[in-house]
Amino acid sequence: MMKSKLALNKLVEKIKPIDLNAFQAAEERQNILTKPPGSLGKLEEISIKLAGITGEVTPKIEKKAVVVMAGDHGVVAEGVSAYPSEVTPQMVMNMLGGGAAINVLANYIGADVLLVDIGVEFDFEPTPGLIDKKVRKGTSNIASGPAMSEEETLQAIFAGVSVIEQKISEGLHLVATGDMGIGNTTPSAAIASAITGKPAFEIVGRGTGVDDEGLKHKISVVERAIEINEVDKEDGLDVLAKVGGFEIGGLTGVILGAAANGVPVVVDGFISTAAAMIAVVICPLVKDYLFAGHCSQELGHKIMLESLELDPILDLDFRLGEGTGAVLAMCVIEAASRVISEMATFSEAGVSDKED
Amino acid sequence: MMKSKLALNKLVEKIKPIDLNAFQAAEERQNILTKPPGSLGKLEEISIKLAGITGEVTPKIEKKAVVVMAGDHGVVAEGVSAYPSEVTPQMVMNMLGGGAAINVLANYIGADVLLVDIGVEFDFEPTPGLIDKKVRKGTSNIASGPAMSEEETLQAIFAGVSVIEQKISEGLHLVATGDMGIGNTTPSAAIASAITGKPAFEIVGRGTGVDDEGLKHKISVVERAIEINEVDKEDGLDVLAKVGGFEIGGLTGVILGAAANGVPVVVDGFISTAAAMIAVVICPLVKDYLFAGHCSQELGHKIMLESLELDPILDLDFRLGEGTGAVLAMCVIEAASRVISEMATFSEAGVSDKED
Repeated sequence: MMKSKLALNKLVEKIKPIDLNAFQAAEERQNILTKPPGSLGKLEEISIKLAGITGEVTPKIEKKAVVVMAGDHGVVAEGVSAYPSEVTPQMVMNMLGGGAAINVLANYIGADVLLVDIGVEFDFEPTPGLIDKKVRKGTSNIASGPAMSEEETLQAIFAGVSVIEQKISEGLHLVATGDMGIGNTTPSAAIASAITGKPAFEIVGRGTGVDDEGLKHKISVVERAIEINEVDKEDGLDVLAKVGGFEIGGLTGVILGAAANGVPVVVDGFISTAAAMIAVVICPLVKDYLFAGHCSQELGHKIMLESLELDPILDLDFRLGEGTGAVLAMCVIEAASRVISEMATFSEAGVSDKED
Repeated sequence: MMKSKLALNKLVEKIKPIDLNAFQAAEERQNILTKPPGSLGKLEEISIKLAGITGEVTPKIEKKAVVVMAGDHGVVAEGVSAYPSEVTPQMVMNMLGGGAAINVLANYIGADVLLVDIGVEFDFEPTPGLIDKKVRKGTSNIASGPAMSEEETLQAIFAGVSVIEQKISEGLHLVATGDMGIGNTTPSAAIASAITGKPAFEIVGRGTGVDDEGLKHKISVVERAIEINEVDKEDGLDVLAKVGGFEIGGLTGVILGAAANGVPVVVDGFISTAAAMIAVVICPLVKDYLFAGHCSQELGHKIMLESLELDPILDLDFRLGEGTGAVLAMCVIEAASRVISEMATFSEAGVSDKED
């Protein structure tokens, strides 16, 4: 079923401002818990933001999932990656077998992994655990034209929406975004450069590990992609279609779908944040539903987070993607929900408050 | 039973350099796991350090505990804290009831809380869950003389050693340090200033929340304590006895005892790091057994971590103590142990390695 722009507008209309009453009530509660006010720093801020998103002062964060969108990229033909495209399906198989970093971390945190083939250049047998939402086997090369048609772009977004809405209907409390796709730092950098207006050389990084020569080349490819595609940075759909990718579109859908249902999203690194930037261009209210899981080592990620006004929870020099940083940050978010829900107040505990 | 300096020397002799073979084997294993080498950043470094400490390339980190040492401080008479001393026993009772931040976080992480009265100015009834190792009801005022006698100092250290060695005998894998004691940022700042040689105004912070006037006064108290006590910064025991405190001594013992038994230690914030500095002066090899759980918002903590050459795992603007930052960081350490133990290698997963 083809999804129209009308359906997207309808989804966006469902996204409401956060609940200011719950936000304020959480702020007040943090000040009467048995600790000096503010002494749990960002953990307090996270709990207050959670309250605003969920409308609950003491929100439950138990059912967690990471959506890993996998897709391939025509731009790999330009030689922008240290790994060949065949690694995308190989890593999908590794994730199905439970051997990738995201499996180990999600298992540790207690989050389900929803692995989606949204555009891998490989014909998978129908496999339990692999969600088939394939739009096409890899995008077109953004260095010579648009990555996808408008129809494909909407299809990718609604693939993400349907995956997340299904999971939310089963009672999900918190979702992380993840990606797998050889070459996907190139379209992500193009999105970031197009939306922020910053030059490519301030944003393009080494991805999985290109050398100095490769980095220079990658910068020129990003510049070319933005130039020849005449990207309209005010139009999220246009940016996504022209210099994006299937998994980025899918993650945009996950983010929009979560926000429309009042579910907080933990954004992972470079690729996921590009998807978040698209979602925020489409609907600025989305910003308040996002947590930045971590600051990636990939060059432009800091600029991307600043443009979204997000303060990363972790800073562990990750540059892997898959949702690894976001999933690990779920610990901190769940801990924040526990603290505001389970700590005693000064009066409950009979503890003297500060001498004023 | 009084413990002598000889017993301390014997303990220190048990502390060995880390296992370089396991360290190197872990480094090599990280390079064949299915991810670009180094792409999990500090998580990889943590796993490699764990291997060195435990001698296991794929160490198990399951049984976890936080030791919270509680004590009072004579220096509170100088008006250095925003809260009165009576809050120390009140917070101990709150911890026994499970209502403090450390209880909530430890419960979430799955760590036992070992709460030790090592010098609280209050007579507790014998209570299940409260370990009685009281040396004295509060230290003497460091602004007018030494905090404790040498005998008391050794007693505090060996209280920590006995608590941790008991727990290690039950199979502990990882310990965090925590503190409770109104006024204890003042002796901790004095220790940091004495050992690093940095002036008090670069180290003294607002603790639980003194105002500008209070901060100036607190700086002068720290300066006076160091001056009148004629601290010998090369002698850890001397620093601890003269400007330290019972809970700081107890934590020094926990750290030395853990290192002597090859158990990694997650150091919490300002007070715990002061204890770590004492332990490292007593035995420099201890440094390799330590993880810095987080960077505290308390002014001098960064200087203290730099002097120990420790890179904090979390940076969430905590300034609470109790072990809160260290316990939350246990997530990351446990995740690191899982990644190196459970991820597939390139050959196991049939994934192509980087194109060179």
